[in-house]
Amino acid sequence: MSHPSFDAEVRRVAHLMADAARSVILPFFRGNALDTQSKLAGGYDPVTVADRAAEEAMRKVLAEHRPDDAVLGEEFGHKAGTSGLTWVLDPIDGTRGFVSGTPTWGVLIALSDADGPFYGIIDQPYIGERFEGAPDGARMTGPLGSRELHTIAPRDLSAAIILTTFPEVGSAADQSGFQAVASKAQLARYGMDCYGYALLAAGQVDLVVEAGLQSYDIQAPIAVIQAAGGIVTDWQGGPAHEGGRALAAANREIHAQALEILQKY
Amino acid sequence: MSHPSFDAEVRRVAHLMADAARSVILPFFRGNALDTQSKLAGGYDPVTVADRAAEEAMRKVLAEHRPDDAVLGEEFGHKAGTSGLTWVLDPIDGTRGFVSGTPTWGVLIALSDADGPFYGIIDQPYIGERFEGAPDGARMTGPLGSRELHTIAPRDLSAAIILTTFPEVGSAADQSGFQAVASKAQLARYGMDCYGYALLAAGQVDLVVEAGLQSYDIQAPIAVIQAAGGIVTDWQGGPAHEGGRALAAANREIHAQALEILQKY
Repeated sequence: MSHPSFDAEVRRVAHLMADAARSVILPFFRGNALDTQSKLAGGYDPVTVADRAAEEAMRKVLAEHRPDDAVLGEEFGHKAGTSGLTWVLDPIDGTRGFVSGTPTWGVLIALSDADGPFYGIIDQPYIGERFEGAPDGARMTGPLGSRELHTIAPRDLSAAIILTTFPEVGSAADQSGFQAVASKAQLARYGMDCYGYALLAAGQVDLVVEAGLQSYDIQAPIAVIQAAGGIVTDWQGGPAHEGGRALAAANREIHAQALEILQKY
Repeated sequence: MSHPSFDAEVRRVAHLMADAARSVILPFFRGNALDTQSKLAGGYDPVTVADRAAEEAMRKVLAEHRPDDAVLGEEFGHKAGTSGLTWVLDPIDGTRGFVSGTPTWGVLIALSDADGPFYGIIDQPYIGERFEGAPDGARMTGPLGSRELHTIAPRDLSAAIILTTFPEVGSAADQSGFQAVASKAQLARYGMDCYGYALLAAGQVDLVVEAGLQSYDIQAPIAVIQAAGGIVTDWQGGPAHEGGRALAAANREIHAQALEILQKY
């Protein structure tokens, strides 16, 4: 596979961004320097100083190396560009996990064109793991070294592992849909934030089902999973890169099994 | 604090055991060498080759260095001793997390006398984190170095973070009890296996509530949490080291708030 806008410079800049975000965020993780604010009145969506500082650090890298690209980030919104390409950034995906100290949050970086993301990084700074999906393949680096990423081979839903972040996924209808799939699977696990998508790309699990997503939550996972051989759609089989409901699957067969159930919700 | 049976030799042997377990288990994590069996007909309780090999490796260390102590392990049962002390071992706590690839499982090692555990280790081999609780204090080593462990200062339940492994804790009554506490907390997170207890000791979260535990699931967490300033009891305020239901709390105040609710279940 290749993509007309993918080259070594895209990869180099993306890793520079991930490196910059890591060094900004890590001093705040499990530290006492957190200035947690609530973005949503009545809800619990902590935004830390680290979150904002990491997006600023990544935008600075882009301003220097890729000034013609557009940027869409969770914290600072949209910046227009002229190249037709957009960097889609979530500096800390899984802020609830972050404040709980769990190593399941991540830095999400994607590069997309009009058709969606074609390059992405899921970075877990504390563990020191980086999952990358590119037109030339998917790979990870971590505590045990580097390796290619390949999703798991087809097996029946009754033997599959399904992940999601919350048992109470999105709305009541969303929750019913998730539970309908989970009840037919071998094992359902919770609380993984974006790390669940990385585990899907790494061939550990078969399905991740989520809802209520923003585009910056899902674009990097889409790029990593697709490069590793998986499929990500919404619950009707359409594109998922604008956010909302996502069905991420290791292969066409398990995707079809889950989609048949989720389409009814 | 001190304990008549705690000395540098206990610590040295415990770390030898944790090191041995790490090197045995890691090649199997996210590998293809898993020989998963089902211990419970109809249930899903995978036991891996790594699980059994790690317990054998730890028992070998004990046979050489502490032959007079009793041993209780998840995989190979009870071995009698003459010292009045028992090593309580769970080679892989969180086997479901292990097979899913999540870094929330751990090696649990405790040393107990008739009153319960007074020394413990929670080790996470993949991240390279080790949490230790001893009569002379609690500490951790990990990717960012070493530090002492102290539980979080008192705050109201409405501001607290509560963790558990499964949203469907134990029996229906167990589940109702957990949900009654969780519904009053700021944030509930799932899927953490024994890692949740480490996060409590590290001052990240206020409560861990679980049920259906075995003694080898809870003894090491008790030792680590108590050494870090926390409290672990059952849901009636009694000792938890025999297993069953556990309420682990960062401090006396939050323990009292949660206990008042859980006592009714």
